[in-house]
Order: sequence, then structure tokens, then C-alpha cells
Amino acid sequence: VAGPIVLLTDFGLADTYVGTMKGVILRLNPNATLVDLCHDVAPQDVAAGAYLLASSYRYFAPTAIFVAVVDPGVGSERRAIALETPHGTFVGPDNGLFGLVGQDFGLPALGAGGVMPLTGTDILGVTLENARYFLPRTSATFHGRDIFAPVAAHLSLGIPLSAFGPPLPDLVLGPALRPERRPGEIVGHVIHVDRFGNAITDVGAADLAQVSAPIVEVAGQHIVGLSHHYAERAGLLALIGSDNRLEIALNRGSAASALGLRLGDRVIVREPS
Amino acid sequence: VAGPIVLLTDFGLADTYVGTMKGVILRLNPNATLVDLCHDVAPQDVAAGAYLLASSYRYFAPTAIFVAVVDPGVGSERRAIALETPHGTFVGPDNGLFGLVGQDFGLPALGAGGVMPLTGTDILGVTLENARYFLPRTSATFHGRDIFAPVAAHLSLGIPLSAFGPPLPDLVLGPALRPERRPGEIVGHVIHVDRFGNAITDVGAADLAQVSAPIVEVAGQHIVGLSHHYAERAGLLALIGSDNRLEIALNRGSAASALGLRLGDRVIVREPS
Amino acid sequence: VAGPIVLLTDFGLADTYVGTMKGVILRLNPNATLVDLCHDVAPQDVAAGAYLLASSYRYFAPTAIFVAVVDPGVGSERRAIALETPHGTFVGPDNGLFGLVGQDFGLPALGAGGVMPLTGTDILGVTLENARYFLPRTSATFHGRDIFAPVAAHLSLGIPLSAFGPPLPDLVLGPALRPERRPGEIVGHVIHVDRFGNAITDVGAADLAQVSAPIVEVAGQHIVGLSHHYAERAGLLALIGSDNRLEIALNRGSAASALGLRLGDRVIVREPS
Repeated sequence: VAGPIVLLTDFGLADTYVGTMKGVILRLNPNATLVDLCHDVAPQDVAAGAYLLASSYRYFAPTAIFVAVVDPGVGSERRAIALETPHGTFVGPDNGLFGLVGQDFGLPALGAGGVMPLTGTDILGVTLENARYFLPRTSATFHGRDIFAPVAAHLSLGIPLSAFGPPLPDLVLGPALRPERRPGEIVGHVIHVDRFGNAITDVGAADLAQVSAPIVEVAGQHIVGLSHHYAERAGLLALIGSDNRLEIALNRGSAASALGLRLGDRVIVREPS
Repeated sequence: VAGPIVLLTDFGLADTYVGTMKGVILRLNPNATLVDLCHDVAPQDVAAGAYLLASSYRYFAPTAIFVAVVDPGVGSERRAIALETPHGTFVGPDNGLFGLVGQDFGLPALGAGGVMPLTGTDILGVTLENARYFLPRTSATFHGRDIFAPVAAHLSLGIPLSAFGPPLPDLVLGPALRPERRPGEIVGHVIHVDRFGNAITDVGAADLAQVSAPIVEVAGQHIVGLSHHYAERAGLLALIGSDNRLEIALNRGSAASALGLRLGDRVIVREPS
Repeated sequence: VAGPIVLLTDFGLADTYVGTMKGVILRLNPNATLVDLCHDVAPQDVAAGAYLLASSYRYFAPTAIFVAVVDPGVGSERRAIALETPHGTFVGPDNGLFGLVGQDFGLPALGAGGVMPLTGTDILGVTLENARYFLPRTSATFHGRDIFAPVAAHLSLGIPLSAFGPPLPDLVLGPALRPERRPGEIVGHVIHVDRFGNAITDVGAADLAQVSAPIVEVAGQHIVGLSHHYAERAGLLALIGSDNRLEIALNRGSAASALGLRLGDRVIVREPS
């Protein structure tokens, strides 16, 4: 039995784009279970979508089908693809949106912009070319509705991956989300600011484990030691968040507002000197 | 088997109004499939709701039940209605919200404000008067929860339309969403601005088909020729969008912000002179 | 058969927090029906969450399982709990979020901050301590995903309440949401402002029933008499809203904007002198 069909887009909820995709899916498979993962990815911000997807997909059943659409190149030459992995099937544009997921299943962690072969990875991919599984009339500007939604519905009905098109030889990688390492310090970056103003960084728990008694420098402030939860002490906190990454928070407040943090800002981790 | 129950409202998602409607529906029919079409219709903007509904409903199964609530006159004398059409059942206030859908099934395309008989159309309507299918206690200010949600649930359980009240003789029409035609030009209007800042107009693909090599004038700019997708060329674009209407877009930007476009603004299509 | 699993949080929809909770639930119970009650509770505003939950839960089936997460103390010593009541099961932090619901089932209406024994009430509670029903790896900052979501899923699968932990002796109460009574007047307060700018107060219909021909004073304005619905007369209105409480509204406008109303503002009801 197929898992839920999980939607992540930059469509927002002020239009009917997401609702229409659901209409298309349920028309083809009235028994599909639909889940909204997130529709507030910043418009056309592929890297943000890649991060949100990569930090969430493992909490779903491995049978889940993820439809991810952040697609500034819709209608152009970019490929439409589907990927089968040991933990979920992924459907969407081949523009880096699935690059971080790909790194979990054998692709190298390159910088943005690379393209890497899928051979030797745990990923089976196809290019979506069989129009039989699209809507009868395909627009050039809304492949979410016309291609990705019906393909996901057909996948959930048990149509095998190979039916949708020829094998995909390689995948466009997105950003690697890895901090820089320098002697005595790790130079990370803010990769997401959540609703509470918590600033999540590309510094992973494994990176931090190598630093004893870390001092975190962000926006000119120094935070000594890691906390375990948001209410542990007053003021600014550094902690390993629910995404298993270094996170800057403010007890009962917004760290991002208080420090003026933005995506890409540096967060440096040092050992005490 | 009934299709999904599809909700469109101006309730937003910051209150519990939409969630409560779903509670009412699922209490009556625990097996109902619910879909959010859109809840961010501008508050009390019936014309905006009518457009969003009309541009989306055909992507759902014909068995879908649409509950649409944009209802500034709730509790007053406006009728509560249900409409059966060849493509979906519609439940909500009779204030023009279903006027564009009605035009798809035989009603004339008048300006706003008209009321037209349903005889000779493909629409079967009733006035919702049978309180047996309402919540036991009906408020004067939240018919979405107290009348429309339980009626939709009962419809999804197979109760025939005629059980809900007397036949509806006529329907309130909304705006026609048709451009003006003048010698040598089509004068259209912006009818929706989406999250990406794309400005959708009332000029349909059929209107455009009559103009060879169109020049589009909007906010003092002239756009020569139609594009096929957003990434086709840099800067401003005019294209036939996913709603099959003329749309003004900006490659990797917001046309509405760049041009200061608002609802009702003119978009003129001309042949080259 | 279990009713729907109903989610109320302050997580917003711009992150993947809510979607991830749904992934966890559906992985454990693929047949669960999920409903979003509201995710726009003001961040960490427990009183706001308590009001929204209390005003909505009765519209769901009594078999519904409510997961409510407004949890500034996540990871600290506050208890994680589940409550079985005659109308729904409730899962979340013990910080006052369930205080108003508790008052419906036998707890006294105290001011904020109190803790009251559950003996003699219609509520059966447990402290969530059995980690067998949590995610294998529990973070300190996202109990919604790691504890509350999987507990709700297991409850929906029929695991009895007592399996989740030891009996809960008492419950943290939230604010009582009761107006002050003075000779000749009721002094109420704004407890919620909805999307339309309607200001809902803690003055209940039963309070109002004791005042003949009420005059409502708010922000220096006097409103004479109660209306039945929003379109009844032009300008400011006072009416008993869909929540069965005194509500201040503006016909086709926002009362909150027009009067500059905020949470906690006074709304005084008097008999004519």
C-alpha cells in the first residue's frame, strides 16, 4: 500500500494552486492520503525548499510519495523527474530541489550547481516523459497541476516507476549545507529562520561533537556553552535543535529579530582559547 | 460514491473557523475526504471568491461537493443554496459567488448584480430550508459551520438534493469577467494577482486567438508578443497562463510589484499598427 | 472507532513542523484522519491557544483526539499529559492549555496559574512517561513531533490511556475568561480578534441575559442594543457571536482596526440609567 502523498511547494495558500493539485490527485486516486509538508517556501528559492524537504522526509513512512515544486524554470528545458529511494519516492523538477536528499543516498556533497551520475547510488530515477500520465492538456506554467500531481497519483496507484519515462542518468545537486572548517573553528551559516525566530545553521551535531566547550559567535555576540532546551536559561541560547543542527534561539523571544539575523549569516564555533 | 468535500472561504487560517467546519463535517460523515481549495479570499470579496472557484472546480472529480463561504450578508435575507451541476455540487450563500460557475452551465454572462432564472440551464438548485440538516442550534453569524458544513456532509452521505428545501428558481450572478472589445483592441482588467506577483486578466485565450502578433499595454509598458513560459526571456512577459487567460509576469520577479498593478487595472491588447 | 486527530499549535505553516507531525502520525496509523484546527496561535501564547481550543472542540465527534502544542517550556520540567473527557481526548503540555476545557468537566474557574486536583471531575489524566510510545530518539525542543504526535497516533490505534504513564493527580489551570461583575455593570475583556476584525469578549450569553436593553461601552463608543447579524445595521454592532459570547463588529469593516482594539481591552455592559 502506498504511503501518503506529501506536498511541498512555494505556491503559498493565498491562491488555489495547492488545492487544485489535490483535486487532480484525488480525481485519479480518491483513496490517496494527502499531507501538506509546507507551501511557504520563499518564492523560487530552490535551496530553501531543498533544506525543508531534507529535514523532514525521514519522519514519513518509507512508502511516502513526495511532490516538491519550487520551479522557476517551469516550461523551460529543465527535466521533470521522479526518484525512488530507500526512504520515499520524490517527484518534481530537476533543479537541485532533491540534491540534499540525494546526498543521503550516495551522491557526493558538492557545492551548488553540480550534476552527478546516479550510478552507484541507492537512487533509481526516471525523466517524466510519458504524457499518458499527465493531464490531457498540459500548460507551460503549472507543471505541479499538469504533470507532477497526476504522476504522483499514478505512482500511488501502483504504476511502476519505469513506466513514466527513460532512466535518469544524473541529478542536479543543490547546495551542500556544510560549514567551512578552519584551524580551531567551524564557520557555519544560517540556513533557515523558523516562525519563532530560531536560526538554524548548517553546523551538524557531528561537527559540534568535535568541539569541547564550544563558544558560538553570531552577530557580534558570544554564547558560551550549549543549552538543552529553550527555557533552560534567560537570553540567547545555542543548542542542538530538533533538526540535529546548531540553532541560535532566544528564551521567550526571537533570536533572529533580536540579532537581525538573515539567511547566510555567519555563525562561528570555537573552542575556548 | 461522493467525491471530496472542497472548502473555499474568506475565513483565513488564523482562527478556528475552517477547522470547526471540518469537525462538523467529519462528525456527520467520518469517511468524508476534505480538501482546502483556498481560505485566503480577501475578506468579504465575493467577486474574488467567484473567480478562484470558477478557475479551479473542473480539476476535481465531477462528484466533488464544493462548500464556498464568502458571505458578508450572513444572517440577513440572502438565500442559502445548493446547486447540482454536471461538474460538481455547490453549497453556499446566493450572493454571486456561484455566478461564474453558473455561466459555465447555461446562465448568461451579465454584469454584476443580475438575477437569472435557472430554467433551461444544466443546473438544479434548492434553497436550504430544511433545518433537519443543519446543526441543532444555528447561529446568525456562522452559517459555514451551522448550515453549509452539515448540508455538505449530508449530501456526501447520499441525501438527495430535493430533501434540503424547495427548488431554487433563479441565481444571483456575479461579475462576468469579460474584457471590453473596441475596434482594433481588447480592453481587459487584472482580476487576480497571485503569490508570485503574476497578474491574471479577464482576457481569455479565445479572445487572444483573434489578435495576430499582439502588443500588450499595461501600466505604461508595451510587451511585444506572447511568451510560452516564465523563463523564456528576461524582464516582463505576457503569456497565456495556467488558467487559460492572459497573464502579465516578470521573469524571476513580481510583475505586480514592479508595475504597481492592482485588481481592476487595465491591460490592453492591440495588433501592431 | 477513533475520531479524527485534531491539531492546534503555534507552529505556523511557514516551517515543516506541522507537516512533520502528520508524517509521524500517519507512519504509525496510516488510516488516521487528520484535521488542522489552527496553527496560527500567537507564538507561545498559551491563553490564546486555550481559548481557541475551548471554543471549538465540541463541534468535533466526542471520539476526537486533540493534540495541542503551545509549549514555551518544552524540554523543561513541565509535564506532558493526556486527558480523557466525555467529549474528546487531549494531548499536550500541562501548562494551562487545557485549563478551559477542564473547567467544562468539573474543574473550578480560577484565575491563571492555579493547579487543581482532578478528583471529582469527569477527567481521567495521565502523565506521558512511557517512552515506548514516543519516537525512538526524543529531542528536547520538539515534543510535538517526538512525543505528542506518536502518543496521539497510538491512542487512535486503541492503546488505552493508562498505558502511557501514571495517573495525573492535578491539572494546571489557565485563565478563567470570566468578566468582572460590578453593581449595575459587567466589565468584560477582549479575548480574541478574528480575521474580520471582530472582537470577541469573555462576556457570555448567560451574562448578557441578565441585562435588559444593554448598552455596550468600548473604546469610548457606546453601542445601544444587540444586533442579530453583521449586516443588520450600518456601523458598529454588538452581538452574541457564533461562540455564544459578546462580540464587537463593524458592518463590512474591521471593528478592531476602527477602534484600535487589542487583547485585554475592556468592554463594559450596562443597563440604561
